[in-house]
Amino acid sequence: MTRLIYQPDPRLDLVLERIVDVSPDLVWAAWTTSEQIKKWFTPAPWATVDCEIDLRPGGIFRTVMRSPEGQEFPDVGCYLEIIPNERLVWTNALAPGFRPSGPSAEEVKECAMIMFTAVISLEPHGKGTKYTALAMHREEEGRRKHEAMGFHDGWGKALDQLVAHMKKS
Amino acid sequence: MTRLIYQPDPRLDLVLERIVDVSPDLVWAAWTTSEQIKKWFTPAPWATVDCEIDLRPGGIFRTVMRSPEGQEFPDVGCYLEIIPNERLVWTNALAPGFRPSGPSAEEVKECAMIMFTAVISLEPHGKGTKYTALAMHREEEGRRKHEAMGFHDGWGKALDQLVAHMKKS
Repeated sequence: MTRLIYQPDPRLDLVLERIVDVSPDLVWAAWTTSEQIKKWFTPAPWATVDCEIDLRPGGIFRTVMRSPEGQEFPDVGCYLEIIPNERLVWTNALAPGFRPSGPSAEEVKECAMIMFTAVISLEPHGKGTKYTALAMHREEEGRRKHEAMGFHDGWGKALDQLVAHMKKS
Repeated sequence: MTRLIYQPDPRLDLVLERIVDVSPDLVWAAWTTSEQIKKWFTPAPWATVDCEIDLRPGGIFRTVMRSPEGQEFPDVGCYLEIIPNERLVWTNALAPGFRPSGPSAEEVKECAMIMFTAVISLEPHGKGTKYTALAMHREEEGRRKHEAMGFHDGWGKALDQLVAHMKKS
């Protein structure tokens, strides 16, 4: 079976690409262990206060983020593709068990939710990792909203936290 | 890795369960070969005039149905789980390559599209097959619309055509 190729579409997708000086297996552990996720996933002063991971296609990826004011934001996704130390793919367009999810008609109208599929790709780079995060959207509007919400800054800061945390551990 | 269990929810899901007298490998071939799909997939007098299959998670499952009046209805889905001769899962909530798909805000408003994930399960039963088709919806409204559109009758007739066709071939 040929491996799936993810070809970013600049109109629909957002990409964060960085070289980091921790190895792919450590980055993988940071992304796939609920205890680790809580340590780095959300740029401070926000926090990730809960995380549930069932690491198989169809399995749950659930996080709860807490704002500095104490408001909690749960987020539930479904894993799609898992290649240890290389590729992690999940979406919030499906609920765990592959049931369609995504925003209700009301949420679409209010633009209250951004639907996307995320692809984290890791490649060895010296002693570190070439890290690529891809967020694929249904339409241009989704990409634009996600960008305006601070995708690059947010995912970049989270990655900084991941690296700092994994170097300590 | 534990195998995913699909537990139908009567509020959200539709199920067609039948014993058919063709073997699981023939039912599998009927579902996973584009030339075969065209022979049985759409209850007559409708026809399936085109079909594209890339049988891997993330791969395309595309069909084009033609009404007796000659109007064509393309439908694009994305495979999620493939266990040869046992289980075939796809959804129209994702486009091929796992990109979020599903109806636009406009289509949601007009109720013009039903989003679902389909699970075809096959079990040997004597010389034949215990055949279960499960359609999982996001919400009760989707299940109701799909039922009203004739899910049981349509999928049942298509299965009759599948059996008749595979017995001949």
